[in-house]
Amino acid sequence: MNAVQHDCEFIRALFVRVRTFTEELARPLTDADATIQSMADASPAKWHLAHTTWFFETFILRAHAPGYRLHQPSWPYLFNSYYEAEGNRLARPARGMLSRPTLAEILDYRQAVNAALLEALPTFSPQVLMLVQLGCHHEQQHQELLLTDILHAFSCNPLEPALWSHDEPQTPDDPGEETPPIDWISSPGGLVDIGHAPSGASKFAFDCEGPRHKTYLEPFRVADRLVTNGEWLEFIADGGYRDPRLWLSDGWTWVQREAIEAPLYWRQSDNGQWTRFTLAGRRPVEPSQPVTHISLYEADAFASWAGARLPTEAEWEISAAPFSPERGQAATGPFTAKDARGFFGRVWQWTGSAYRPYPGFRIADGAIGEYNGKFMSGQFVLRGASHATPCGHSRATYRNFFYPHHRWQFTGLRLARDGA
Amino acid sequence: MNAVQHDCEFIRALFVRVRTFTEELARPLTDADATIQSMADASPAKWHLAHTTWFFETFILRAHAPGYRLHQPSWPYLFNSYYEAEGNRLARPARGMLSRPTLAEILDYRQAVNAALLEALPTFSPQVLMLVQLGCHHEQQHQELLLTDILHAFSCNPLEPALWSHDEPQTPDDPGEETPPIDWISSPGGLVDIGHAPSGASKFAFDCEGPRHKTYLEPFRVADRLVTNGEWLEFIADGGYRDPRLWLSDGWTWVQREAIEAPLYWRQSDNGQWTRFTLAGRRPVEPSQPVTHISLYEADAFASWAGARLPTEAEWEISAAPFSPERGQAATGPFTAKDARGFFGRVWQWTGSAYRPYPGFRIADGAIGEYNGKFMSGQFVLRGASHATPCGHSRATYRNFFYPHHRWQFTGLRLARDGA
Amino acid sequence: MNAVQHDCEFIRALFVRVRTFTEELARPLTDADATIQSMADASPAKWHLAHTTWFFETFILRAHAPGYRLHQPSWPYLFNSYYEAEGNRLARPARGMLSRPTLAEILDYRQAVNAALLEALPTFSPQVLMLVQLGCHHEQQHQELLLTDILHAFSCNPLEPALWSHDEPQTPDDPGEETPPIDWISSPGGLVDIGHAPSGASKFAFDCEGPRHKTYLEPFRVADRLVTNGEWLEFIADGGYRDPRLWLSDGWTWVQREAIEAPLYWRQSDNGQWTRFTLAGRRPVEPSQPVTHISLYEADAFASWAGARLPTEAEWEISAAPFSPERGQAATGPFTAKDARGFFGRVWQWTGSAYRPYPGFRIADGAIGEYNGKFMSGQFVLRGASHATPCGHSRATYRNFFYPHHRWQFTGLRLARDGA
Amino acid sequence: MNAVQHDCEFIRALFVRVRTFTEELARPLTDADATIQSMADASPAKWHLAHTTWFFETFILRAHAPGYRLHQPSWPYLFNSYYEAEGNRLARPARGMLSRPTLAEILDYRQAVNAALLEALPTFSPQVLMLVQLGCHHEQQHQELLLTDILHAFSCNPLEPALWSHDEPQTPDDPGEETPPIDWISSPGGLVDIGHAPSGASKFAFDCEGPRHKTYLEPFRVADRLVTNGEWLEFIADGGYRDPRLWLSDGWTWVQREAIEAPLYWRQSDNGQWTRFTLAGRRPVEPSQPVTHISLYEADAFASWAGARLPTEAEWEISAAPFSPERGQAATGPFTAKDARGFFGRVWQWTGSAYRPYPGFRIADGAIGEYNGKFMSGQFVLRGASHATPCGHSRATYRNFFYPHHRWQFTGLRLARDGA
Repeated sequence: MNAVQHDCEFIRALFVRVRTFTEELARPLTDADATIQSMADASPAKWHLAHTTWFFETFILRAHAPGYRLHQPSWPYLFNSYYEAEGNRLARPARGMLSRPTLAEILDYRQAVNAALLEALPTFSPQVLMLVQLGCHHEQQHQELLLTDILHAFSCNPLEPALWSHDEPQTPDDPGEETPPIDWISSPGGLVDIGHAPSGASKFAFDCEGPRHKTYLEPFRVADRLVTNGEWLEFIADGGYRDPRLWLSDGWTWVQREAIEAPLYWRQSDNGQWTRFTLAGRRPVEPSQPVTHISLYEADAFASWAGARLPTEAEWEISAAPFSPERGQAATGPFTAKDARGFFGRVWQWTGSAYRPYPGFRIADGAIGEYNGKFMSGQFVLRGASHATPCGHSRATYRNFFYPHHRWQFTGLRLARDGA
Repeated sequence: MNAVQHDCEFIRALFVRVRTFTEELARPLTDADATIQSMADASPAKWHLAHTTWFFETFILRAHAPGYRLHQPSWPYLFNSYYEAEGNRLARPARGMLSRPTLAEILDYRQAVNAALLEALPTFSPQVLMLVQLGCHHEQQHQELLLTDILHAFSCNPLEPALWSHDEPQTPDDPGEETPPIDWISSPGGLVDIGHAPSGASKFAFDCEGPRHKTYLEPFRVADRLVTNGEWLEFIADGGYRDPRLWLSDGWTWVQREAIEAPLYWRQSDNGQWTRFTLAGRRPVEPSQPVTHISLYEADAFASWAGARLPTEAEWEISAAPFSPERGQAATGPFTAKDARGFFGRVWQWTGSAYRPYPGFRIADGAIGEYNGKFMSGQFVLRGASHATPCGHSRATYRNFFYPHHRWQFTGLRLARDGA
Repeated sequence: MNAVQHDCEFIRALFVRVRTFTEELARPLTDADATIQSMADASPAKWHLAHTTWFFETFILRAHAPGYRLHQPSWPYLFNSYYEAEGNRLARPARGMLSRPTLAEILDYRQAVNAALLEALPTFSPQVLMLVQLGCHHEQQHQELLLTDILHAFSCNPLEPALWSHDEPQTPDDPGEETPPIDWISSPGGLVDIGHAPSGASKFAFDCEGPRHKTYLEPFRVADRLVTNGEWLEFIADGGYRDPRLWLSDGWTWVQREAIEAPLYWRQSDNGQWTRFTLAGRRPVEPSQPVTHISLYEADAFASWAGARLPTEAEWEISAAPFSPERGQAATGPFTAKDARGFFGRVWQWTGSAYRPYPGFRIADGAIGEYNGKFMSGQFVLRGASHATPCGHSRATYRNFFYPHHRWQFTGLRLARDGA
Repeated sequence: MNAVQHDCEFIRALFVRVRTFTEELARPLTDADATIQSMADASPAKWHLAHTTWFFETFILRAHAPGYRLHQPSWPYLFNSYYEAEGNRLARPARGMLSRPTLAEILDYRQAVNAALLEALPTFSPQVLMLVQLGCHHEQQHQELLLTDILHAFSCNPLEPALWSHDEPQTPDDPGEETPPIDWISSPGGLVDIGHAPSGASKFAFDCEGPRHKTYLEPFRVADRLVTNGEWLEFIADGGYRDPRLWLSDGWTWVQREAIEAPLYWRQSDNGQWTRFTLAGRRPVEPSQPVTHISLYEADAFASWAGARLPTEAEWEISAAPFSPERGQAATGPFTAKDARGFFGRVWQWTGSAYRPYPGFRIADGAIGEYNGKFMSGQFVLRGASHATPCGHSRATYRNFFYPHHRWQFTGLRLARDGA
């Protein structure tokens, strides 16, 4: 088997695995569950199912499979997300109006595109195969978004329905577990290399992860574990949400305007007990678990309160590289396995770095060039992977990004300090 | 059969007919169709189905059927509309988040409440029977709202799905029909009686329709037909939407802010042809049909343009009384039949009267008192009945009311002039 | 002296008196005071001074004084209020940006227009003289607005400056005065005439006050005095602002959204004492004084709480006619003198009547036709005159109007009840 | 004279010069000009005059001059900008309501504080002297803001008043001047030092300019001149404002929502000629002048259109250091003199760097710690100095910062490219 054949088989397996898993995630949803949109930042599950399919249809089948005919000519307008080069599209806040097509019709759409793509796959050039690979990683991003978006939608229903019966995508830590004191991972800093260096097809990365480049770091320390719910309860009890000196100015404005008093989905009952809404319904806040559903503003204020700071993305990457899932950790299930230090497989970790291009970054030609580059203002980088990140999706160089007020993702934090 | 028994049978038949018809209206809807909410003014079909049931459960079964247990204790919070006395409730704009309970669960709720109510019916006092009757007329209001709300929701879907295949609830006029010139119905005015005078159970009216009272009218004329689409096209062509002198000040602000250029759901294609979105999908604008989906502001501007004015509600009532559906017109179907002058069964007709209490009006005690009285500011009265108004629901004294910018109802107009 | 000469002298005296008084009102203001605009509903004092002058320049001098040249060609754009027929104009919320022209320049503008108008006055036809009279009454409206707008602006300054040293435009009642129980003024109702019937030039009325017409009233009673601060304190203490059953639905939404807990400008100190901000600075709330700075929503809720209702404008007019300032009451100063029942000279009184045209009302041709008619939606009628209403401005038929949430005017209420 | 005495004299001279110059800038303003506030981002001139004085009163006199009594105890509430540690303060958008105190009263306040401070100056420790120095540089920032804010306010007045008669603070280039092609300043990159290293009192810098630290740069080129109006006209003519592919996603949203078509204050007349509003009134757009009043979004889109990018702040600093005004350029007037390459004294230049802390940055203790650090989210760094930046205020390490949509400052751009 030559290299192209090898890549073709590799991509075929990836494609089948990813496409199947998306549908597994959506299986507990009714047509109505899959239709609703709870805020402009979120999308209906139905839309995620269709948009990821539109991506393959538009950038691969329509462009590279001669004779392919659109499944429904009116649907690209519905399921284009933000590709200006691909023409007009449904306004984002209107995605929740799509009671038609039905969920069943969208699953048919998926099957039709899957079949056409698998049939055409042997004819694709290496460049097109890489687009298919991109489409798979794109779909993995939407797998996590599907979960965070449905969590948000269900949280808006006073009945608080549960997506599934187990607590989270993965087995939680033993709830009785004690939180150990932080053991700092020290680094001397100096001139280091970060970012993705391209290699073979099996080493996928998004464009924004490169070019690999040098950067200079002062000596620093990064915590060997995540901030926990128990520590967050101390922050709350100490008045952390009411002390403006701890907050970025924009953060303080946000806290006051939105009357923020705890992480998203947390609620305190009359007897003082804290609970949080999860994909398995409302559950107690476990002190030993990593805190999640916090904004960058909250993460930054907590770090100030703790006499620490957020790591930069370079500091994080240097510290996390030994624990990267690529480094031989065996996959243990459909989601990213957690490593011993919690860099991967627990929560996305806010860094202190604004999401901006690396030196030498070039936006790709054509619509695919809109993938990442145009979002490089106003957002912050998160690193790691959450318990809801699909297995094989993240790595040490991965750059996730959200606006500093966003907290419906599985977002947490890890502390850092100056000096080794 | 004594009078109470008679009333009981009358109410039972009404109840069964109304409850059944609501479900017939909802039959073409998927669970997802029934879940979505396109704007804060509208409600999901599922919510209409449940709220009307909540009304019977709350004000009749819970209050007057000893031993009745709530179908689901958590649901009153979801399905209370605006009754402050009934406690907290879901914020109106969040009604579209109720993917659960499912449509099937809500239909079960309806059956359970129907069964309990029909069983308890023989035990009810005349006062409670009148509450059941009120609940039926309340549900008829929601029948029409269910249709106008789903029309609005479907209009927000670029695929523009059709609820059903026929053009409208009723057979339209022959599309080739010519519009005759207006023949004015003259009245000398003077001291007249308007409003509802209570009589037996078979003569239901809402509280706001009374007390019957005297009012003095100057001589006036009311048009013997509705304003048509063809006349509205002339108004558009003559620049009616661009001439501030024709508009109320609030209306002109609204036209400019919302960039209004035609009735709701109208669209002009590149070749100049006008179409409008209906429950049967997008259709041509038929010049001979009455114009609909216009605001009070548009109705008032059109009347100014036409050298006329809107009738007051008293003028309308005096003119329409001979055509009232109560006056022996045979019901020809589930919706109000249209009369020869179009007062009933075509479109609701904006009047120039603000919705305010009649002399001697008293708000009823208890939560039922919130039914009408508290809405008596900022809204205008509409009279008549549309093609989507259930048969038996309207009458000459009926006072419908909406804010002057509202136009997602089946709203049209009839002209009036001073002098007999 | 013939009739036209007589009218001419009458109008000349009125013009001189009104124009002078506006400047007296503005005398305590600095250029900066006269420039600021505290909300879109209010206008800077400077703008009132100029706009009233623009009215005379535009509708009289430019139209009827041959050879008149605009004082500044660029100013009509600045000082047109809402006359669409007069062309584009400065957006209302931007009026507060006019630091130039200076107050002194605007006073020069006033002098120039005064001189030109007085010179041309003898040449004017009776029709034009009536326009001058209209301009004078228009300016009197702005005299009161100037005071209410500067009161609002000063209330936004934490230093709470006082416009003048005396409490209010007029001597208040003896603060120790006891509030007597209400003595009801009964009326048998029946067919009555209300509204203005035109007579000579000395009997000015705005177009919306006519035509005089018949209306039928049920027997009713109107309170012989205004609701007082003391009664309002009871309403507050009894939870009036927290009980939704008392409120119109729109009012309850407003109370909650704006967190309304007392009349505008009222504040409760830590020791429980209530004060209110006035044109003379912050003062104690005197229980015997009529309550003011309340919205229609508050007035309506208070009336519900008191087991009463608001009078209709016809009921008010019938009851107040014997106390009308036209009926021989001697003017005692620059503001309307208060009558024994408080119909005039204390506060404007909300009625339960929406501001709509009287039967037979016709909008005048041309820009002057925009004066009143186009505002006839969404507003409620107030009757009477406040302590800040210029002497000679109001009368029993006078229809003032504001939106139901407005309360920066000197607005109060008088109760009414059904039955004589 | 010892070092402290020397510093004391140096600071005294700085203080007198800075305080005097602020008043010179305000001299053309009327009380009303100095009172108005045209948007929440801007402040009235009067407020700038008082706030800079409050800074000295609060952080120096009240804290370090025993026996000092506040000029007016109620004023700190008015003139605190954003120092949470200093207690409650007037909401920012309400600054335009301060018609009182008058401009004259605020000038008195300035004199009183000046006198007290100069009297106490000899008693101050070196630490307090450094606070005085900080207060002077703080006031210089407000000097430029005073000009940009009054420019914005005057732009909202349809009369478009001019602050002064000359075109800009400084003599413009010869309008006929030709724009030379860009000559690129190349740099090999590598490990470089940037940021401020503390030295004596004469070398002031803000806290955010340090610590001086190493950073690694790839080879790069920076343009030897600014982008001109002429080039911007080409960008407009080429459809730059209508091509989404050139824009950051947030920028494209902004362009569409705000209907942006040109730099702020630009206007195209019917004959196609472009003019722009300046402190000297409306003037022609001179093609040879550097473009100004553009947002980061516009700067970034222009750079994409030009096949270039924005420099990072490190690249800019390395390139500009030889031209820093500290390096011996003689001051030629009250504003920063322009250097041959336009790094200083023309426009602030957007960089591609988000405003974030340098490695090792620590927020100072107390209220002074709020000076810079809390603004380090969501903003971008600008470098250089504009024609309105006071002489002696900027330097190569200076970090100015604004949100990416801001453009009422004198903001322009300089292009950069990868590779030396």
